[in-house]
Amino acid sequence: MDIRPIEEKDRAPIAALIRKIETFSPQEVEVAIELANTTLTPGNTDYAIIVADRDGELVGYICYGPTPMTEDTYDLYWIASAPEVRGQGVGAALVSAMEGDLRRRNGRLIRVETSATEAYGPTRGFYASMKYGEEARIRDFYKVGDDLIILTKRL
Amino acid sequence: MDIRPIEEKDRAPIAALIRKIETFSPQEVEVAIELANTTLTPGNTDYAIIVADRDGELVGYICYGPTPMTEDTYDLYWIASAPEVRGQGVGAALVSAMEGDLRRRNGRLIRVETSATEAYGPTRGFYASMKYGEEARIRDFYKVGDDLIILTKRL
Repeated sequence: MDIRPIEEKDRAPIAALIRKIETFSPQEVEVAIELANTTLTPGNTDYAIIVADRDGELVGYICYGPTPMTEDTYDLYWIASAPEVRGQGVGAALVSAMEGDLRRRNGRLIRVETSATEAYGPTRGFYASMKYGEEARIRDFYKVGDDLIILTKRL
Repeated sequence: MDIRPIEEKDRAPIAALIRKIETFSPQEVEVAIELANTTLTPGNTDYAIIVADRDGELVGYICYGPTPMTEDTYDLYWIASAPEVRGQGVGAALVSAMEGDLRRRNGRLIRVETSATEAYGPTRGFYASMKYGEEARIRDFYKVGDDLIILTKRL
């Protein structure tokens, strides 16, 4: 498997991948695709994407970038892997590649926002395994009964 | 004093006002002006601005909008009043006008992000007086020693 920065040829495959993720709502699909397109815009420095490419097939990606108005803080905006490669370490490889990139940029703090609902239980377990800890929570943020959980990791 | 939605004629005065705010860093000035310009873009629904106009002079503004991927949650992005009108209730009038607008839109939750540093003490006192309570905190978010405080108010 090849873990590499996004290229122009990934534009359509990444949109197709995002559409396959069952936990993403239609609005989340739209925002995630828009962010991927912004990342591919020449001159962009706000967002970065690393993809997992298995024999020419795009099976995962991670999107992150510097948090505006902070010193050396970064947001992990999106991560997804194709249903057919789940449990094969694709997500862990992507997070590790992002962390390596951020260490090179002198990144200090990584923030991830996720949902407290049951559907996101595996996501929270994944982040815990990667040493992202819960630092804050906003009750009823996404909707009534659906809290925002803010995870962080210090590099 | 007139509390009203932003108009095209406010574009230059709002940028001039933002440049006068002593707590804003150069990067914050840039982002705040960019957001005001985005708000004035035809078709924009992501951001709203209400201004305080005193005898034709723009002396304060508040910028807010729906939080992406949430149901009825809103972010208060920026609020500022001119140094010469401080203590005259301009900020409170702007927050009240925003809350009125959000109640009409069936807004449920308002989030504000601010800094834990001493320079933002008056800002935090202002929000407390408007019933915005601290709900979460991220240590060393803006920079080492400068925490993010997340305030919320339920409508």
